[in-house]
Amino acid sequence: MRTISVGLIGFGTVGSGLAEVLLSQKDRLVQRSGLAVRLACVADIMIDELPPQFAGTKLTKDAREMINDPEIDIIVELIGGIEPAKTFVLEAIAAGKHVVTANKALLSQEGKEIFAAAADKGVEVGFEASVGGGIPVIKALKEGLVANNILSIMGIMNGTANYILTRMTDEGIPFADVLKDAQELGFAEADPTYDVEGIDTAHKLAILMTMAYGMNITHNDIATEGISQVEPMDIEFAREFGYRIKLLAISKNHGDNVEARVHPTMVPESHLLASINGAYNAIHFTGDTVGNVLLYGLGAGKIPTGSAVAADVMDIARNIEFEAVGRVPSLSYLPEEIKDITITPMDDLACPWYFRISAKDKPGVLASIAGVLSEYDISIESVIQKGRQETGPVSIVISTHTAPEVAVHAALEKIDHLDVVSAPTVKIRMLDETVSFEG
Amino acid sequence: MRTISVGLIGFGTVGSGLAEVLLSQKDRLVQRSGLAVRLACVADIMIDELPPQFAGTKLTKDAREMINDPEIDIIVELIGGIEPAKTFVLEAIAAGKHVVTANKALLSQEGKEIFAAAADKGVEVGFEASVGGGIPVIKALKEGLVANNILSIMGIMNGTANYILTRMTDEGIPFADVLKDAQELGFAEADPTYDVEGIDTAHKLAILMTMAYGMNITHNDIATEGISQVEPMDIEFAREFGYRIKLLAISKNHGDNVEARVHPTMVPESHLLASINGAYNAIHFTGDTVGNVLLYGLGAGKIPTGSAVAADVMDIARNIEFEAVGRVPSLSYLPEEIKDITITPMDDLACPWYFRISAKDKPGVLASIAGVLSEYDISIESVIQKGRQETGPVSIVISTHTAPEVAVHAALEKIDHLDVVSAPTVKIRMLDETVSFEG
Repeated sequence: MRTISVGLIGFGTVGSGLAEVLLSQKDRLVQRSGLAVRLACVADIMIDELPPQFAGTKLTKDAREMINDPEIDIIVELIGGIEPAKTFVLEAIAAGKHVVTANKALLSQEGKEIFAAAADKGVEVGFEASVGGGIPVIKALKEGLVANNILSIMGIMNGTANYILTRMTDEGIPFADVLKDAQELGFAEADPTYDVEGIDTAHKLAILMTMAYGMNITHNDIATEGISQVEPMDIEFAREFGYRIKLLAISKNHGDNVEARVHPTMVPESHLLASINGAYNAIHFTGDTVGNVLLYGLGAGKIPTGSAVAADVMDIARNIEFEAVGRVPSLSYLPEEIKDITITPMDDLACPWYFRISAKDKPGVLASIAGVLSEYDISIESVIQKGRQETGPVSIVISTHTAPEVAVHAALEKIDHLDVVSAPTVKIRMLDETVSFEG
Repeated sequence: MRTISVGLIGFGTVGSGLAEVLLSQKDRLVQRSGLAVRLACVADIMIDELPPQFAGTKLTKDAREMINDPEIDIIVELIGGIEPAKTFVLEAIAAGKHVVTANKALLSQEGKEIFAAAADKGVEVGFEASVGGGIPVIKALKEGLVANNILSIMGIMNGTANYILTRMTDEGIPFADVLKDAQELGFAEADPTYDVEGIDTAHKLAILMTMAYGMNITHNDIATEGISQVEPMDIEFAREFGYRIKLLAISKNHGDNVEARVHPTMVPESHLLASINGAYNAIHFTGDTVGNVLLYGLGAGKIPTGSAVAADVMDIARNIEFEAVGRVPSLSYLPEEIKDITITPMDDLACPWYFRISAKDKPGVLASIAGVLSEYDISIESVIQKGRQETGPVSIVISTHTAPEVAVHAALEKIDHLDVVSAPTVKIRMLDETVSFEG
């Protein structure tokens, strides 16, 4: 029986999870492939010995030693971040090793260089674990949906942000309090910026768009807004309108241009994405042949991520065994088919909106606000006026029909300068399924 | 550029859908694989000519002519049913052709013979479209979740049954009326037995269990109950208890034995499966490494099914090109690893229950019923008494804590013989997530 040797760079949470998965699933992988997968070596500068169950695995502090070891077939990079991950990945490719990584920051920023190097060298780069944790979403897009023009991508792709929004929704407590608690429970990192500001979600959307449309894109091309400004009262008003607030990645394919954005979104409670709670992720595709498809599962976690990394390792192991490296292009389209496609400017988009306006409780306030909206052709769907007190501002909450970004920005600029308005207006985009799926 | 030639048996709804998909996605498939897929020939006894867009495709009334044509690489069987499909599939395999089929009845009944023949001959059998329409669920199970011991399978796998239950739930109208309407709208077949009696769902569960556990099973091994006895009032009572009624396929892996059953199930409304409506399907797996995963999409339909068949064709085409036939075993485990595993007898199972008892409106009725339940150690969770009228029976609706099948059958036998009970008791199993996922 052939043995495929894996070298692992990074024995942190995800790395040690992979090691555990390869050990616990060892016999199953043989039964399903006839191949033995061996964790031959681990490189990690932080540890001096491996747990006893990995006695057969070599430990080194020098990743290059492993990269240059001719016995290693596949290098798994699980250190995260741009450097030194990028250097190790490129050196592994240059040494003719196949690479598996969960590093979405690296791929969404440096993917072009990495995939070009891999194509030149004739090695594979697997990255199932970079989006949606253990959910087999990359394989679905590359293979299961191969006969589809992907018309839209929509998803909840960050478990930390979804966990925070779910607890804010269920318990009515502010963002900062939930975040602090999530950090104590290990659901959020000490520096939560990437997760709560939508950057991690943008990394993942960039990877999915590359593969769905066969295009060059980095996460810097994606308009990104996080959830740190979402307040419990917005969640409560959303509920009154029949919506949940979710941090969504949204892309729609208009043929010669494609939308790409990450922002808090009011999702109708009848939509499946409104029911995705806690640390779960869900990614929704619309394809021109398959219609709507949604894939759901844990978006992170030591062992679920290990499931995805192990699946990539097996895919490559089978290709090694069958001398079929390159059988499916890494990015789903052949390298020469990957094009530049224009990103639709945000200013060209339109959607229904939620506004929360802080106004003085005086006669004529609503008339003034409605007058400005009308001036910009923004059509009101419904209005709730809340928080009427003896003194102090009231919240005027408005949902609109579909209105262009440009008009909304101009109208709110004017509304926020009205004498009767006492604080900047909060605006949240609403999901319009008609617009989303039939664009 | 290499051309892979496909022969299609059956140009009905699904067959013509595949032809359309191969035509509309022709360029995309080239861009994603470097291979051209050509629909070389169609065999169908019912038609005399193909639509004009398929001018390059030969039409025959004799499937054997195509099976024996050395230019054909892959035979796609889309006629459905056992015969002559089985004969054509076995003859195609014997002729050294790869086979793709959407025929769940055939595979769940005759799969053992077909897959053995294919393994002997060294050809592939693709069947992504046999479960979940266009949802790439077979590929997920074979490859994406390769590093998982599947602990449970749970799903809504028949779009017709789910469509009927959804309309019964939304509109409060009886099964027979919705079925009639569904037939007129083309959502149900003239003979709906397979769909509404759970047989089609059992076919699909048998296929998934084969692959998930590496076991021999046919749909005859699966305890199957359909939805034709579900009444609007049960749906309404379910709602009062916070549940939806869904036709679920359920399998739990207990290691040395596995559960396998299809029946109407009360699903807590907080569970994602309760939100799967209309003709959509959703399949939920729990794996020991990935945790919970759910895949959602259209479970049928001409073009979505074509998406799945085309994905299988591409998979085989890539294996032909790379001389990697057999790269992934057809049933996810190597043929020699597929075992006989005992199906847990239904009598050994236990779950929470819903009972609707038709009783005379007399003092002491509830005491008699509760007395019998207590005698069999069945613990009541809640009781609703409805329909109190001047004359005629009342409905006593009871939800129970987890109770064994055997005790429930014996207790209801006794209850139905009480003087005060006027009609056979309706019983519906309730989903207990704790039991379902941690079995």
